[in-house]
Amino acid sequence: MVNKKSNMYQNWLSHREIKKSCYKEYINNILVLNHSEIIDSAVNELKNAFDKIEDVKEIQNICEDEKEIIGDKFIKLYIEQNDKLINEGYEITYSKTDDKKECISICANDDNGILYGVFALLRLFEQNYDFKSKEIIDNPKKNIRIINHWDNIDGTVERGFAGSSVLFESCRNKDIMSEVMNAIGGIAATNEGLRKAFNDEYTVASDLERINDYARMLSSIGINGIIINNTNVHKEETYLIDDKISIVKIISEIMGRWGVKTYLSINFASPITLGDLQTADPLDSDVIKWWKKKAEYVYSVIPNLGGFMVKADSEGRPGPFTYGRNHADGANMLASAISPYGGILIWRCFVYNCRQDWRDHTIDRAKAAFDCFEPLDGQFLDNVFLQIKNGPMDFQVREPIAPLLGTMDKTNKLMELQITQEYTGQQKHVCFLVPWWKDILSTPTYANNIDNNVEQRINGIAAIVNVGNDENWTGHFLAQANLYGYGRLAWDSNISSEQIVAEWIKLTLGNNPLVMKNVSEILMNSWETYEKYTSPLGIGWMVSPGHHYGPDVDGYEFSPWGTYHRSDNKGIGIDRTLESGTGYAGEYNEPLKSLYNNLETCPDELLLFFHHVSYNHILKSGKTVIQHIYDTHFEGFEAVKEFISKWEELEGEVDKGIYEQTLERLKIQFDSARDWRDQINTYFYRMSGIEDKKGRRIY
Amino acid sequence: MVNKKSNMYQNWLSHREIKKSCYKEYINNILVLNHSEIIDSAVNELKNAFDKIEDVKEIQNICEDEKEIIGDKFIKLYIEQNDKLINEGYEITYSKTDDKKECISICANDDNGILYGVFALLRLFEQNYDFKSKEIIDNPKKNIRIINHWDNIDGTVERGFAGSSVLFESCRNKDIMSEVMNAIGGIAATNEGLRKAFNDEYTVASDLERINDYARMLSSIGINGIIINNTNVHKEETYLIDDKISIVKIISEIMGRWGVKTYLSINFASPITLGDLQTADPLDSDVIKWWKKKAEYVYSVIPNLGGFMVKADSEGRPGPFTYGRNHADGANMLASAISPYGGILIWRCFVYNCRQDWRDHTIDRAKAAFDCFEPLDGQFLDNVFLQIKNGPMDFQVREPIAPLLGTMDKTNKLMELQITQEYTGQQKHVCFLVPWWKDILSTPTYANNIDNNVEQRINGIAAIVNVGNDENWTGHFLAQANLYGYGRLAWDSNISSEQIVAEWIKLTLGNNPLVMKNVSEILMNSWETYEKYTSPLGIGWMVSPGHHYGPDVDGYEFSPWGTYHRSDNKGIGIDRTLESGTGYAGEYNEPLKSLYNNLETCPDELLLFFHHVSYNHILKSGKTVIQHIYDTHFEGFEAVKEFISKWEELEGEVDKGIYEQTLERLKIQFDSARDWRDQINTYFYRMSGIEDKKGRRIY
Repeated sequence: MVNKKSNMYQNWLSHREIKKSCYKEYINNILVLNHSEIIDSAVNELKNAFDKIEDVKEIQNICEDEKEIIGDKFIKLYIEQNDKLINEGYEITYSKTDDKKECISICANDDNGILYGVFALLRLFEQNYDFKSKEIIDNPKKNIRIINHWDNIDGTVERGFAGSSVLFESCRNKDIMSEVMNAIGGIAATNEGLRKAFNDEYTVASDLERINDYARMLSSIGINGIIINNTNVHKEETYLIDDKISIVKIISEIMGRWGVKTYLSINFASPITLGDLQTADPLDSDVIKWWKKKAEYVYSVIPNLGGFMVKADSEGRPGPFTYGRNHADGANMLASAISPYGGILIWRCFVYNCRQDWRDHTIDRAKAAFDCFEPLDGQFLDNVFLQIKNGPMDFQVREPIAPLLGTMDKTNKLMELQITQEYTGQQKHVCFLVPWWKDILSTPTYANNIDNNVEQRINGIAAIVNVGNDENWTGHFLAQANLYGYGRLAWDSNISSEQIVAEWIKLTLGNNPLVMKNVSEILMNSWETYEKYTSPLGIGWMVSPGHHYGPDVDGYEFSPWGTYHRSDNKGIGIDRTLESGTGYAGEYNEPLKSLYNNLETCPDELLLFFHHVSYNHILKSGKTVIQHIYDTHFEGFEAVKEFISKWEELEGEVDKGIYEQTLERLKIQFDSARDWRDQINTYFYRMSGIEDKKGRRIY
Repeated sequence: MVNKKSNMYQNWLSHREIKKSCYKEYINNILVLNHSEIIDSAVNELKNAFDKIEDVKEIQNICEDEKEIIGDKFIKLYIEQNDKLINEGYEITYSKTDDKKECISICANDDNGILYGVFALLRLFEQNYDFKSKEIIDNPKKNIRIINHWDNIDGTVERGFAGSSVLFESCRNKDIMSEVMNAIGGIAATNEGLRKAFNDEYTVASDLERINDYARMLSSIGINGIIINNTNVHKEETYLIDDKISIVKIISEIMGRWGVKTYLSINFASPITLGDLQTADPLDSDVIKWWKKKAEYVYSVIPNLGGFMVKADSEGRPGPFTYGRNHADGANMLASAISPYGGILIWRCFVYNCRQDWRDHTIDRAKAAFDCFEPLDGQFLDNVFLQIKNGPMDFQVREPIAPLLGTMDKTNKLMELQITQEYTGQQKHVCFLVPWWKDILSTPTYANNIDNNVEQRINGIAAIVNVGNDENWTGHFLAQANLYGYGRLAWDSNISSEQIVAEWIKLTLGNNPLVMKNVSEILMNSWETYEKYTSPLGIGWMVSPGHHYGPDVDGYEFSPWGTYHRSDNKGIGIDRTLESGTGYAGEYNEPLKSLYNNLETCPDELLLFFHHVSYNHILKSGKTVIQHIYDTHFEGFEAVKEFISKWEELEGEVDKGIYEQTLERLKIQFDSARDWRDQINTYFYRMSGIEDKKGRRIY
């Protein structure tokens, strides 16, 4: 059973540090000038924090009129049209009232702004921020900040490494589900009904509470959208827009109270799967009518639904290609259907041939998304958003940016990241991804010949989440920092990795300097370490096929998935140049095109993604490729040893449960890193026959 | 639905050719001097054959007295103590009676002899054998001729490639099962009860009929034992000696009518799994008592049970090692328990460390069985039979013989073959294994310094069967020939592969000379062809891990299973010599030991099993190792093309269903052989950098 009082469950929202804050007296008095479900959540959060101040035994004073303030310090929440703010932004100001009371106020244009302001305020209280020095104006850089769940109704999570689904687990028991449905009055659920479900003594209440706790987590880091089901929509999940819509309703009600909009992954072939039509052709008038009617129904039940997401013509999913239509035809038809209700249509660009022949060196999976979508620029409706993975392949530890991000000016774009560590150690290894994401967001695209980076090119951001129903939410406790960091970056990509790490450690593990130092060192070095002991120089893919954990150099080499290393006894790498390779480098804007295309200028860390080179090729670092492989693999493994030493220094300094669980994972990482080191080094030693200059043991 | 009238279902027992036989008139009159359930089965088989003679519209005359013979030709079946015969043997004689009637008689010492004689007689009738020239005396060379099923109660078959279990499929539906149980009167099943189950209109009857049809098939080729459940005994199957014994009872009753004894795979930890004891220590007095009582119970229900089989301390199975006991302790305890009832205890020797470290070149899985069992020679009870795989590894397309076969003179030994094509194309590829099995059986062991071959060293033979509930029984129709051939060889290993092929084709596809020629050419070349396009020179194991289908050169190279190729850019092979290797070669008797140990004398086809050599090493064939790899892989693929051509010539000459289904499989084999060719050649070309002398395309 999950212990909801445990520190690992409480995550960065324990408010444990609040009692040490110099601002704690402010929390005694809350002046709330506006009311809504979302503002209620914000006020509740202040109540939560108040409850953590153990030496305060009074009752928190929450009032609607300044006259009712009791002490001389208070917090004020109010909505006001404020030109410095955009939607969801907030302003935090310190002031003195006429009667000398000290007030910290949160002002926003809307409910979400108040909620985000409260979370920020508590974060700052716990860090003893100096509010008097200057006001805070904090607007989100992007207004779409979404989490993708690859959760299935049966509770399984595709590429999930933290237990079963936090969203659907409670739906597995039909009896429990129908109890809830009765409690909330079926699909015509009211908030009264939901409250009843929470307050009654149903077993299920705790499951719904968990969804609520999760919504609170998302909200606390500024996430405002959630796609609740797997992008691969299987048969059962197709019915989420049909007779299983009650499940969506329940989740969306809970999420809505925290300012998080619910979205649904849908099956492009729904008109067929649900048994109504013989076709899903997006230009067929019956299909168009079918989706219009379906959208009308779905929005009648869930008026605040964010919209639909579709993975089409990809890895076996149905799509417009079946009917000789293009992806604009497919996306626009659906977008039209939900447009009257304010819904948006998110369309994934992960389209490639997953049955290609490894013998044919002219096909290049890296080119696929660009080739499919770039010619369609300008054809998508305004409420269509293309969701583009950060790189051209699939969430490898390092990839160049997707060339689509530097083009398609007339199309809305979301960038898709992966928080769940599918290819980065599956939450058995510590791998803090924020430095990598910052790297991506700040990469220049040179679109329209100006130095605009990825962050400037996108209308929003999405990521596949790493959460499950494990007590610590993320399997590896330290993986919580990835979720935290994703939210913080999605809100404002200018926040530094170091600041994110510092915030997360303080809020989660407390202010102990040794803990701050060691955990920060582990996190900040973990992504680079993972890269070192796994596949080198941007080549990627040396993982076990299927599950993607652990080394298998040739695992994908002769498969139909289009992912190779092309090593032989002379060299390694994929030639993607314009002259002798697949021409992929040509999909970038200049000067990126030349930078990558040219062996002399291509950065070391992406060298093998773009070039096939000899093992004796000298890198910019001055080392040969083969010596780089040996060195990084030995170094990466040593770094994991260091992580363990650093963590072991924290025994007694951090929560015992967290300490032991994390140590256990670090030891798993140690064994796995050793496997990686030895298998990669052995493979390339056997291939190249070149000795390690340092004479270390290669098997 | 399975069509039981189809030619593929009827297999070699259609008796279609009987109507062309010059002996067909004999079948009109059957004189039966003895009676039993088994002899009833024999007589029924003659009735079956009679029904196939379409132009005879009379009623077959079955009588007990020579005076009742109507025509002038008849068949006589009788039991008589005959010194030329051993148990299960039979004599077939042509004679004339005093009143000038022509008689072909089958004489045997026992019921099984009569049954086997009848099947032989029909086979010979269909081939127009000349009975007048000389009498036939046919004694089995081994009296244990067993089939192993790796079937689970849920209907799945481990390493099964022909559908679900023929034995347990009917047990999957609980309602049907309980109907049958009622019909046959629970565990106290009588033959009356069984007949009722057959004759009533239960859905399940057809499933039981299928078990009956299968028992008939086994019997027709002389198989006299069947282990009905998976050697990996999972939780549910542990209950086959407990409250699921009724299932065993049903199967054993059906099998018994065809002279086939039923055996059970048991779980060594049954006393714990069934919840009675805390230990399964074979020297613990409670455990000893528990098994004695269990054996008493099992034999009270199934008095004719053949015995138990155990896989212990292997691949995660429990065994005596858990309690610090050896395998003689484990086997003898169980053997004692079943000895009072005439049961035998079959103990598998597939014991090795499946968690070994690939970095450690001193561990050698090939040595494991010898190291474990050889020191125990003389310690096993008389009713214990060690079941030893033909080779030291695991059913690769070629292995040297298991060294255990040349030692342990004081221990009963069964040799284990694999009919199911786990590593030989999984019944998607045609791979006729009889030539390989004959090779194994005729290999000299030089035990006790005499030239005695494997066949002379063993007390019986066992094989994992390739049968499932596919309409054609074996997935690939041509794989029927492996089951047929196994039975024929188990009876008499002197029969030639060519004779087995000829018999099978005639009985199954008829006498058409083109069919005889082409099918025979395909079958006779298929094993060598499979070897050519898969892993070379005895190295084995270049298969995809887990499922074992298709190429993956490094699939097992860095795994804990102890199976390697150790290729680098200079050479390939495992050094198992006494001087510089693991010393495995030393487990053979001289001169085999020197033959294998010595690079100069080691046969090409096993070279890489025993030696690590350079790619430029010159084979006895005069080719280099690398050129041999290239040549065999190109040749093997071309041979598959030839198979397809030869098969396509048979369109219209063989049953349409068989033609099409087999062609489909041949095309799958074609694609797979191409993958093998290209992946193996590419891997070694990349590794070695040595060009193909013939300049063929390597990718």
